[in-house]
Amino acid sequence: MSTARHEPIPELICELCRQFYALGWVSGTGGGISIRGAEGIYMAPSGVQKERLRPEDIWLLDGAHDDVKVLCAPADPTLKISECRPLFANAFRLRGAGAVLHSHSLWAVLASRLFAERGEFVCQGLEMQKGLRGMGCFDAVRVPIIANTARESELTASMAAAMVAYPAVDAVLVAGHGVYVWGSGWAQAKTQAECYDYLFRAVVEANRLGVRLT
Amino acid sequence: MSTARHEPIPELICELCRQFYALGWVSGTGGGISIRGAEGIYMAPSGVQKERLRPEDIWLLDGAHDDVKVLCAPADPTLKISECRPLFANAFRLRGAGAVLHSHSLWAVLASRLFAERGEFVCQGLEMQKGLRGMGCFDAVRVPIIANTARESELTASMAAAMVAYPAVDAVLVAGHGVYVWGSGWAQAKTQAECYDYLFRAVVEANRLGVRLT
Amino acid sequence: MSTARHEPIPELICELCRQFYALGWVSGTGGGISIRGAEGIYMAPSGVQKERLRPEDIWLLDGAHDDVKVLCAPADPTLKISECRPLFANAFRLRGAGAVLHSHSLWAVLASRLFAERGEFVCQGLEMQKGLRGMGCFDAVRVPIIANTARESELTASMAAAMVAYPAVDAVLVAGHGVYVWGSGWAQAKTQAECYDYLFRAVVEANRLGVRLT
Amino acid sequence: MSTARHEPIPELICELCRQFYALGWVSGTGGGISIRGAEGIYMAPSGVQKERLRPEDIWLLDGAHDDVKVLCAPADPTLKISECRPLFANAFRLRGAGAVLHSHSLWAVLASRLFAERGEFVCQGLEMQKGLRGMGCFDAVRVPIIANTARESELTASMAAAMVAYPAVDAVLVAGHGVYVWGSGWAQAKTQAECYDYLFRAVVEANRLGVRLT
Repeated sequence: MSTARHEPIPELICELCRQFYALGWVSGTGGGISIRGAEGIYMAPSGVQKERLRPEDIWLLDGAHDDVKVLCAPADPTLKISECRPLFANAFRLRGAGAVLHSHSLWAVLASRLFAERGEFVCQGLEMQKGLRGMGCFDAVRVPIIANTARESELTASMAAAMVAYPAVDAVLVAGHGVYVWGSGWAQAKTQAECYDYLFRAVVEANRLGVRLT
Repeated sequence: MSTARHEPIPELICELCRQFYALGWVSGTGGGISIRGAEGIYMAPSGVQKERLRPEDIWLLDGAHDDVKVLCAPADPTLKISECRPLFANAFRLRGAGAVLHSHSLWAVLASRLFAERGEFVCQGLEMQKGLRGMGCFDAVRVPIIANTARESELTASMAAAMVAYPAVDAVLVAGHGVYVWGSGWAQAKTQAECYDYLFRAVVEANRLGVRLT
Repeated sequence: MSTARHEPIPELICELCRQFYALGWVSGTGGGISIRGAEGIYMAPSGVQKERLRPEDIWLLDGAHDDVKVLCAPADPTLKISECRPLFANAFRLRGAGAVLHSHSLWAVLASRLFAERGEFVCQGLEMQKGLRGMGCFDAVRVPIIANTARESELTASMAAAMVAYPAVDAVLVAGHGVYVWGSGWAQAKTQAECYDYLFRAVVEANRLGVRLT
Repeated sequence: MSTARHEPIPELICELCRQFYALGWVSGTGGGISIRGAEGIYMAPSGVQKERLRPEDIWLLDGAHDDVKVLCAPADPTLKISECRPLFANAFRLRGAGAVLHSHSLWAVLASRLFAERGEFVCQGLEMQKGLRGMGCFDAVRVPIIANTARESELTASMAAAMVAYPAVDAVLVAGHGVYVWGSGWAQAKTQAECYDYLFRAVVEANRLGVRLT
C-alpha cells in the first residue's frame, strides 16, 4: 500500500495504536506493537496508554533479543521497553517477522476459554480465513493456546514451542490474556490480526446463537 | 444529496471505505466497492487495507467484464484489480447498477448461517425494510444465500443465477462469507447495504433474545 | 451548555446527525431531527444519508403543521420535507417541544418486541432514568408502544393518543420501527434519547443474561 | 506519558470526556471526572452533555469537601458543580487520589446485577487485572457493590465505608448505577477504569457464553 512507504515508523506505530485502541485491543495500557525498520527494531513502550503515544515515546533497538542495545531511547526517561520484548523476539527470531503485535481483545480471551480443554482454537468455512497466510476458506484454522503466566516474559518458552509446533500459523493465543500475531511486515501483521479477531468473534457469536459455522 | 455531486469518485471510494471499515464490513483486506462514473468503472484494488486507500490506488476500467481494459492503473504497480470484479460485473451487467459493494459483515455471515437450510434470509415487519428498493415494512424480505467457493471468481455463475431468481432484490448473501449489495448509484448501494446489515443483525439479536420480530 | 448558544441550527443538525449515525440511530436514511429556532422550525430532509447532511440541505418551515409554509427550502431541489413532519408536529403542538428526534436504534426495536404483549416498555431501578424529565432512579419508567403502519404519517393519531395517555413521558416507541423522543430544547431531546437508548439496551441485555435489573 | 505534562487540565478533562462518551461511560449527562491540579481541584459540571464540554465549563475548587470554595467558576452561570462532588471527595480525602471518575457503563451495571446477592464483583485469571494497582492476573479481584440511592450525595457514607473495607481496591460499584474509579493521577484513574470495564464485560460475556473464565 503506497501509504506504507512514506510514513516514519514511529508515527505509524502511534497511528496504529490509536486504531487498535478503537478496536478494543490495547486499552488499560495492555497490548503493543513492534516493527522492524531499516535502522533497527521499533517498539512501543511498556505500560502506557497506547492511544496517546507520541513518536518520541517509541524505542529504537538493535533487535529484540535479551542483550538488546538501545539505539534511541524515548525522550521521557520514565518509559520502559515493552514487557512483550522477549515475545516479540520470538516472532522476529523464529519467523523472520517484519512486525509483531499483541492484542488483549476480549474476543481472543473468550475464544481461548471456549477451546480451553482442546488447547487450540479451531474454525473452518469462513471467508475471512483467506486473509491468513496460506489459508483457504475451507481449510481448518488451528491456533495454539498456551497458558498464561504471572509475568509476560515467562511466556517466552511456551510461545516459542507453540510456534514450532504450528509452523503454518502466525499467531499464538494466551489463555485469559490475548493473542500475539505477526507478519512479514506491519500490514500483514495487522491484517492477519484483524482476520483472527473476526474469526474469534465469529466463533463466539455462533456459539451464543447455537449455530454451526460450517 | 448535494455532497454527492462534487466529490471525485476516487476520493469518494476512499472515504466510503474508511466508513465501511468502521462498520466492520471491510477489515482484514476483505470487502470492496466499485462505482460507475462518466469516465468508466472505478474499482478498489484487491487485498489491501481498505481504510488506508488513497485516491491514486483506485482502478479506472472501461467496464467490469472479463476482457476489461484498464483506462487508468494505480500509481503503485503492486496493486491488482479487485478479486470481486466478475461479481461486481454481475450487478453492472444484469441490473444496470451504478455501484456495487461487498461487505464481510459478521452479521451477514451469522444471518446466512441461521438460514442455511432454508437457502434464503427472510424477515418481515421491520421499518428498516423501507430503505430497500420497492419494500414496505410489512412485506417479506427475501435474500438469496449462495454457497461460498474457494475462489471469489467461482461465485460468478451462482450469484448471477440468484440475481435472476430474485429480480426484486439488490443483494446476494454468500454463506460464511458476506454479502454483495448494489444500487442505481453509490448512495443507494450504501443505504441498502446499511438496511440489510441492520436487518441481518436484528434477526440475529432477536433470535438470541428468543423473541419474534413480527 | 455554552456551545449551544453559538452554533447555527442547520450546522447543529448536521453535527447531531453525524453523532446519531455513529450511535446507530439514523442509518439507511432512516431517522431524523427537527429543532425550533427563532426563525421557525428547522427540519432534516427525508430519505437522505443523515451523516452526510450539509447545512444547506435543512428545511426552514413556519411550523410542522399540515399546511406548513416553507420559509427556506434546501438548495437541492430533489430534497423533500421529512416524512416524520406530522409526528414531529405532535411533539411541537401537544407538548410545546423545542426539538424532537426520531431514532431507528435496534435497541428500541428489540425492546418494543420484548414488551409487545404488554403494550408499554417498563423498567425500574436504573440510575440513567434520572436523565428523563421528572424521573428518579427508583420510579417505574413506562413508555407507550404503538403499532407500526405502512406509512409514517399514518402514525400521527396513535402517537398523539399515546402522548395524551402518558403525559409525563417524552417518548413513544413504535413497534419494529424505533422511537420518537422530544424535549424543551435540542439538548434535552438528545440527552433523553440517550437515556432511553441506554435503558432499552439495559433491559435487552439483562434479559439475555437472565438477571433482573431491580 | 509525555502528553500529560503539557495539556492544561480543563482541556484534558474535555478531551477525556469525549473519549468516555465514545466508550459509553458518560451519555445522557451522566458520569464525570475530577482531577487535582497544582491550582486546586478541577471538576466537570453537573448534568451537562460531557462530550460537548469546553474548557471554560470546568470548575476550579479549593477541594471537594462540603464547604468547598470556588476558585474559578465556569463562564456559563447556569452550570452547577458535579453532583458527584462528595463522592469524588471520598477518593481525594480517603485515598489521596490525584483524580477520580464516574462511569455509567452498562457493563458495570450488568456486572453489579450478576453479583447482586454476593455484594461484591469477583473475577480471576484475566490478564487485564494487571492494570489494577497491586493485582496479578491470578489474584482474585474483588470490587465492593453498594446499593444505589435516590440522590447521588446519599451514597457518600456507604461509598466511604466500602473504600475502608476494601483498601486495596480503587473502585466502588453502585448497583444499577455505575462505578467510581480513582488513581494517583488522571492516567491511573483512566487506565484502571478501562481495566475494570473490560473485566466487567468479560464476566458478563463469559456468563452469556456459559464458560468459566478461570
